Amino acid sequence: MKRILTIVAVAMLTVAASAQELANFSRGAAVKSPEINGDKVTFRLSANYATQVNLTGNWLQGAVPMAKGEKGVWEVTIDAPEPEIYTYSFTVDGVTVADPQNYYVQRDGTRYLNMLIVPGERSENYVEANKRGTVAYRWYDSKILGINRRMTVYTPYGYESNPKAKYPVLYLLHGGGGDEEAWSSMGRAAQILDNLIEKGLAKPMIVVMPNGNPTQQAAGPMGLPTSGKNEPYIKSLVEEIVPFIEKEYRAIAKPESRAIAGLSMGGGHTTSATITYPGKFSWILPMSAGIRESDHLDADLQGIKKAGYKLYWVGCGSADALAYKNTQVLDEALTRNGMEHVTFISDGGHEWKNWRLYLNTFAQLLFK
Amino acid sequence: MKRILTIVAVAMLTVAASAQELANFSRGAAVKSPEINGDKVTFRLSANYATQVNLTGNWLQGAVPMAKGEKGVWEVTIDAPEPEIYTYSFTVDGVTVADPQNYYVQRDGTRYLNMLIVPGERSENYVEANKRGTVAYRWYDSKILGINRRMTVYTPYGYESNPKAKYPVLYLLHGGGGDEEAWSSMGRAAQILDNLIEKGLAKPMIVVMPNGNPTQQAAGPMGLPTSGKNEPYIKSLVEEIVPFIEKEYRAIAKPESRAIAGLSMGGGHTTSATITYPGKFSWILPMSAGIRESDHLDADLQGIKKAGYKLYWVGCGSADALAYKNTQVLDEALTRNGMEHVTFISDGGHEWKNWRLYLNTFAQLLFK
Repeated sequence: MKRILTIVAVAMLTVAASAQELANFSRGAAVKSPEINGDKVTFRLSANYATQVNLTGNWLQGAVPMAKGEKGVWEVTIDAPEPEIYTYSFTVDGVTVADPQNYYVQRDGTRYLNMLIVPGERSENYVEANKRGTVAYRWYDSKILGINRRMTVYTPYGYESNPKAKYPVLYLLHGGGGDEEAWSSMGRAAQILDNLIEKGLAKPMIVVMPNGNPTQQAAGPMGLPTSGKNEPYIKSLVEEIVPFIEKEYRAIAKPESRAIAGLSMGGGHTTSATITYPGKFSWILPMSAGIRESDHLDADLQGIKKAGYKLYWVGCGSADALAYKNTQVLDEALTRNGMEHVTFISDGGHEWKNWRLYLNTFAQLLFK
Repeated sequence: MKRILTIVAVAMLTVAASAQELANFSRGAAVKSPEINGDKVTFRLSANYATQVNLTGNWLQGAVPMAKGEKGVWEVTIDAPEPEIYTYSFTVDGVTVADPQNYYVQRDGTRYLNMLIVPGERSENYVEANKRGTVAYRWYDSKILGINRRMTVYTPYGYESNPKAKYPVLYLLHGGGGDEEAWSSMGRAAQILDNLIEKGLAKPMIVVMPNGNPTQQAAGPMGLPTSGKNEPYIKSLVEEIVPFIEKEYRAIAKPESRAIAGLSMGGGHTTSATITYPGKFSWILPMSAGIRESDHLDADLQGIKKAGYKLYWVGCGSADALAYKNTQVLDEALTRNGMEHVTFISDGGHEWKNWRLYLNTFAQLLFK
């Protein structure tokens, strides 16, 4: 960690010093933040005129007050959390502020948050592999939804230089508040696949990350994301996106070479798509979603059982108040219907550290 | 503008309300910012505990004080600037803060800035066209620089669905402080090309936007950008990136189908690459750079003249203190050497509004 952060800090100074194209590239006092020393991490912010500065982070319970030191630099040193990727920000006199010394930023829905990567076994597949695939932003015309829409498509290392190779496809769906960039940004999907493929732990595959908000064209201000209207989206996903990918990419167009996985709302899309189109996807992986009890649940699952599948893999955090109960409902319904499946319960709740872990886990099982 | 901003504001509320995957998705008071009314624009920030809040923007001279109104919301209304894309941020008690109500953000070097799009003729090609090309992040192995490196590659609408079509290539280089995302983010290169191609004003082309910092692998904390070492970068650009593109994309591998354009430092890369490899690129377009007077300048340019070229196009802002003099040097040297060329002098200085204008202008001339 120390090595990585040192590089970042030096990089920023160099960029600032040579930043000819920036109209205003002063970056204030050159303080170092964040800085890991052993099992401690220090955050700093230059804010001479502030009266209160706090640190908030997704691994912290509540705000941590920072203290004003020399030259107006506020600082706090706390225990470094265990290896993972975390997000944090500062609060200056009640207003959320990004750490200007850390330009490693992720967008989580509408918020931009600084990243803290603590290296270790748990996070080793979340940083860049040696051989890296391509991440492309593609548009497709949806007649069903009446708009053109953007998706993120990962093709593995070697895709372009092996023009005859064909690949299986994982459709990887985001949750509410997310968009077609969520899995590649917060989810580290490209890094995870690159690492697993490089280590020989996963098959080379295409990963398609569509936008699951039916009325939104793309991330950003190009459309209006709303909930609801999921049925036409499921129809577009299966009847438009899948054929689009299988036409424009070298994808193997068979059920055994199609996987569908999604988190939260995307887990709902996963169960809906596989119930509505049984036999279309042989690999079914809802995460942090489960399913609602209903009087047609058994019949729905029997449709999938009859059509056949390779793997039904259900992931959830034990502290996931939103999804744990419905995960139990799904687990029990699969058992009751005599359907082989894996239920993977991890620590933690409804959060990205779990979804990265799930992808890193089930991607090793796919298409084998 | 009003329409666009209204959509953004509604979109954010909806996202926040349905943001199941956000650990902490409260966005504070739902104030509207920015808001255009006729020829005025209002900026607002909820900051009840702040003692001073200012607005800064790249079209403004100095900081504009905001006034605290009801419920702790700070506000200022000013004249809306002329149609263009602008960036702005707030300063709260001396600390730079992004507008939490506007999630249209651009990264300029190491800083994340909010965007304000004022619609009009000047900016009409900077927003999404109907038919949109693909923007991909590609890696290539540089033996010359000893690292693998990322580039951004734009392929025009229809590239994937016309598997036999071949395209000319524009190599589009960023300036100091930028990276392989600068032209697609601040430069709106994909939107400009999409619009020009859709209107029949530009030929469909591939646009390659490499990372011009020789020791940096990619934007972000994956490497150390430094200035200097430009010669090996030029060598890698011409001897590694060009062949890579011509092997892995359906590119027309002829000088008449290669253009090279760059801003500031990238303008220097453009003049260096074309002097070092005369005849490689038939379309030569340095922007906001010019060239330094030297005792071998005439011989350098004679090499290009001898090898032949289709267009030598030089752009600069009349108020560009960094580059205007060297642009005159280049213009005079081209004239002195009997080389046909276009010198395009615009208002303004060393800034993105000029580089977007230049791309929008010269892209209409290329490969014709």
